[in-house]
Amino acid sequence: MRESYHDELEATTNDVVTMAQLVRTAVAEATSSLIDADLARAEKVISDDARVDDLHDGVELRCFNLLARQAPVAGELRTVIAVLRMCYELSRMGDLAVHVAETARLRFPEHAVPDPVAEQFSEMARLADAMIATATRTLIDRDAEDAERLASDDSAVDDLRREQFRLLLGDDWTYGVEKAVDTALLGRYYERIADHAVAIGSRVIYIVSGEAPEGENWPKAF
Amino acid sequence: MRESYHDELEATTNDVVTMAQLVRTAVAEATSSLIDADLARAEKVISDDARVDDLHDGVELRCFNLLARQAPVAGELRTVIAVLRMCYELSRMGDLAVHVAETARLRFPEHAVPDPVAEQFSEMARLADAMIATATRTLIDRDAEDAERLASDDSAVDDLRREQFRLLLGDDWTYGVEKAVDTALLGRYYERIADHAVAIGSRVIYIVSGEAPEGENWPKAF
Repeated sequence: MRESYHDELEATTNDVVTMAQLVRTAVAEATSSLIDADLARAEKVISDDARVDDLHDGVELRCFNLLARQAPVAGELRTVIAVLRMCYELSRMGDLAVHVAETARLRFPEHAVPDPVAEQFSEMARLADAMIATATRTLIDRDAEDAERLASDDSAVDDLRREQFRLLLGDDWTYGVEKAVDTALLGRYYERIADHAVAIGSRVIYIVSGEAPEGENWPKAF
Repeated sequence: MRESYHDELEATTNDVVTMAQLVRTAVAEATSSLIDADLARAEKVISDDARVDDLHDGVELRCFNLLARQAPVAGELRTVIAVLRMCYELSRMGDLAVHVAETARLRFPEHAVPDPVAEQFSEMARLADAMIATATRTLIDRDAEDAERLASDDSAVDDLRREQFRLLLGDDWTYGVEKAVDTALLGRYYERIADHAVAIGSRVIYIVSGEAPEGENWPKAF
């Protein structure tokens, strides 16, 4: 019974890793659809999100069954609680990638964002992708040290967003209100994707140490 | 032992209800600070959010202890899992109220939003407040029927947001790019607050029935 329990916990973690891979693809493809005004690609991101949602539901069901049948304690209980939160964070990241793709679709055949901010979104997407990859690896390796570094990666995304605000609120902005509003909202979506990656890192720290980094919404110790 | 267990589960639910009350105050006060350009009020919303975060941490700790010591099953396990999610939803709502207050603070002594959209934000805040009140009541009464109605309340908030987009992207918008961007982002915050209230309703349905309404990111049955 214990053997199958560990298998089940590992399978659950593997599902979270699969979700993270799907979300990385979604963010990359949504960004391409935005920058290239590629309708087919945008549509695919939107329809593929159902797979992320299905995995979310599956992970929750596995967690429920683990708690009901195995009554884990200590580190294993922390893992189940962390995984419950992580699958939600990942499903939200998937939703945010969908919002990016929906913006591309809404403005098609026009490009939703002008060139100067398009470059920033490429960079934000690249940073977010690296953060999700790091978050996933730290989960697999139980690497609290690298998980802690995600917070500083996040500040690079925030810096880009601040730069973007300076651009669109500056006197040189000649692209009108609609493109400014789209840019501001898209910036918010990328910022939130990065925030969720940091939050996953926090759960890894919690699994490893039972403690959360300061300032995180997480019980300090058990 | 069972007696203290039920007391503990009830105390945990009570903490969620307290969080909801604090969040209702935060949304109402943040909206006032936005509409009246009231700096002191904005500052208070921002500093008071620490109480919501503390309650979030406390609820998680209580849930962990309940799971570790009591190994609940069936409806009681569903309640603990739902409460874990609800406290996160509420802490996010608190953060979003803080974002509204931060916008008021950033633009002070100016009003961040012009009169026509200020009225819409008042109405969005009123709707959100009613939704949080409903979500809380359905949790206390385990009322799945009213919890289901939250989704239709949410569509009224979405309608207001669509109306707002028509305003700020229309030819009559004379308030410039900055106010358009602020309005679009603030609209997003209110929309998300309402979404979180719907999500709490979904967890109530889950506690009562073990099933989620169709289309929700929640396991269909246990």
